Amino acid sequence: MQSNNSFPEKLEEIELLDHLFVNCNIATMANNCYSSIIGGAIGVSGNKICFAGKKSDLPLDFEKRASHIHDMKKSWILPGLVDCHTHLVFGGSRSKEFEMKLAGISYEEIAKQGGGIFSTVKDTRKESIDNLYEQALKRVNCLFNQGATTIEIKSGYGLDLECELKMLEVIKKLDDNHAATIKATFLGAHALPHEYKGKSGKYIDFVVDQVLPEVKKQGIATSVDAFCENIGFSLKETERVLRKAKDLGFDIKLHAEQLSDSGGAGMAAELGALSCDHLEYVSKASLKKMAQNNVTAVLLPGAFYYLKEKQKPPIQLLRDLNISTAVSTDMNPGSSPLLSLPLATNMACILFGLTPEEALLSATINGAKALGLEKQKGTIEVGKDADFVAWDIVEPCDLSYYTGSSPAKMIVTCGDVIHK
Amino acid sequence: MQSNNSFPEKLEEIELLDHLFVNCNIATMANNCYSSIIGGAIGVSGNKICFAGKKSDLPLDFEKRASHIHDMKKSWILPGLVDCHTHLVFGGSRSKEFEMKLAGISYEEIAKQGGGIFSTVKDTRKESIDNLYEQALKRVNCLFNQGATTIEIKSGYGLDLECELKMLEVIKKLDDNHAATIKATFLGAHALPHEYKGKSGKYIDFVVDQVLPEVKKQGIATSVDAFCENIGFSLKETERVLRKAKDLGFDIKLHAEQLSDSGGAGMAAELGALSCDHLEYVSKASLKKMAQNNVTAVLLPGAFYYLKEKQKPPIQLLRDLNISTAVSTDMNPGSSPLLSLPLATNMACILFGLTPEEALLSATINGAKALGLEKQKGTIEVGKDADFVAWDIVEPCDLSYYTGSSPAKMIVTCGDVIHK
Repeated sequence: MQSNNSFPEKLEEIELLDHLFVNCNIATMANNCYSSIIGGAIGVSGNKICFAGKKSDLPLDFEKRASHIHDMKKSWILPGLVDCHTHLVFGGSRSKEFEMKLAGISYEEIAKQGGGIFSTVKDTRKESIDNLYEQALKRVNCLFNQGATTIEIKSGYGLDLECELKMLEVIKKLDDNHAATIKATFLGAHALPHEYKGKSGKYIDFVVDQVLPEVKKQGIATSVDAFCENIGFSLKETERVLRKAKDLGFDIKLHAEQLSDSGGAGMAAELGALSCDHLEYVSKASLKKMAQNNVTAVLLPGAFYYLKEKQKPPIQLLRDLNISTAVSTDMNPGSSPLLSLPLATNMACILFGLTPEEALLSATINGAKALGLEKQKGTIEVGKDADFVAWDIVEPCDLSYYTGSSPAKMIVTCGDVIHK
Repeated sequence: MQSNNSFPEKLEEIELLDHLFVNCNIATMANNCYSSIIGGAIGVSGNKICFAGKKSDLPLDFEKRASHIHDMKKSWILPGLVDCHTHLVFGGSRSKEFEMKLAGISYEEIAKQGGGIFSTVKDTRKESIDNLYEQALKRVNCLFNQGATTIEIKSGYGLDLECELKMLEVIKKLDDNHAATIKATFLGAHALPHEYKGKSGKYIDFVVDQVLPEVKKQGIATSVDAFCENIGFSLKETERVLRKAKDLGFDIKLHAEQLSDSGGAGMAAELGALSCDHLEYVSKASLKKMAQNNVTAVLLPGAFYYLKEKQKPPIQLLRDLNISTAVSTDMNPGSSPLLSLPLATNMACILFGLTPEEALLSATINGAKALGLEKQKGTIEVGKDADFVAWDIVEPCDLSYYTGSSPAKMIVTCGDVIHK
């Protein structure tokens, strides 16, 4: 769902409130902390928040002017969660591969049997738009039902013009039909397709000269990402992709320093990236560039967990340098089949040492920032999109404390109210 | 819910089938493996399974004799999961303590502010039966909705006669009212209450002489457990509790070797325990005694995860000695606020190295064995309780592969069909 961004300059211009939520506690997540309001109220006009504060501060006539008043029975309301890094459109399944790995079967043998990312590429290429959509819709629903009202989805399992565009079309269809806001990112430089084996430069030529302009022309992605890694593309190759993307007017992002330090984060930061993602092996020099350029660090504890990695991202250094951290599921079939953003925030606490407050900021306003949506999403403040979730919890930190539960009671997206 | 154990000796004696489930795939989990049946059918008469096999092997008249025929549209059906070790009845919350720990506040300071297990004891003692029931019911529902049709719950946050009995009464009320089968375990020797500080022998006297006989008299627990650990009770103290419990006719179990090796597992095995639980530090000598006495090893990866432990239970040795392993959530507010048994099986795979097949056996038939229910629960076989779950998955291993999703579509408990 795309939001309409027109909003009256002054509250007096609002003639009718569509919804007024009262008798709630609110963690607005504004000002880089919970910013809790006990005994709060939220007013919604159209698809925007027109009041968020103590009920006692509500203008007197608001209750009369509201079409619907919702007694929230002391529920906690938090901003709709923002899952800023997923690969949830794909064909096939990799669970058998997961099973083979755990049975001790070697990577060579798994690859020989057609496993790894190229099995997903093969299955995604042969799948119809409708089938890809149906499978992805289940995953979007699962994330949404656990509070994610904004979800980024990347292409990158097509690796040819036709299938990359097909994936982006599926993502557009999800956005058109789902209550969640879906953002599309083009990730053509995700892996080197077999057709280009030994010719990564040629593949990058193809992405830069043919695919990127076509994606731009069709207007079906707003961001461009690439995988800068030994097993992905080199610093120079990813820089070519990001520079071209930037020239074409895309936002840019980078998978950087997940398994080794290639210097990608520093390069992307200097190009003005919205985010650098993973960052387990990032250098201090690159982090300083990220800090200077206000780049968000997207942490992906699901991949760290599933891959049984040992090296954590440098959390204390990120804090010291005042770099915003986002947390995302990285939902993908190979290294992070994780379908709950609250669970990802728990993993960020347990595995990386974030505090629950940092983890929730990471899954709300900082996730929005990683998508360039910090003016519309991620906090409960006047003028922002009316995206918020009422939870059956006692404290906001419960969302990162419990695992395996989904206590969302009501989800509001762009002013539409969905009871669970 | 308690099951009725009468069942006709011969299929011909069954006049009517209440339910026939067709067009399904079944992982029966019999014979210590998936035992998958593609194109299967399950017949239910009363609360028992009266057919489980290929649809082509179904007696011809079964379809005519079935009151309800369910087209399962190729869903996978697995046995209802068995969560054999939980502490899910408790008052208060420990999420603030979780937050304090992650903010770097010391254990001493947390204890000074009233944290730790004794905060749960305090909150459980002061809570009414109805409030404890309402809170616990949400947790049971959460586990149930993710496939757990049999759940064990321990007392152990009362630590006095009145509150231990109150907890067992809550557990009984859950069993009376819920579709899941709930088993109660008395865990009076869980921690030393403040009233007995420095007098653990006196507390064990009290448990053995006063509480255990009263619990037996009231008939509100079938098993007795104890916490054998440096920070719990000594080998000798826990042995006294288990011996008395055995004399009174209880099944016995033990929290053993979670943080150090006290020799508890060997002792409990020699006394004929159903299970020894945790076992990170268990010795080979104790494991041999467990193997000789057919004791189930209950693995609790949630506590390992939340406590950031490094020493894993000796999985390969358990396999080599042919010891059955069960996996459970250990749901409790201090060290494992984990509300999904499928997620626990994933953690058993990722953190301990179980295969998905081992993990699913651990959460079905071996969980049943840890509760002495292997004749009624844990596999889909003729004569067993009709407890099974239809899942929206492509392969059985998907249950341990994905995290954060709950794809249960239909839950059958003791013959009652609940659509999700």
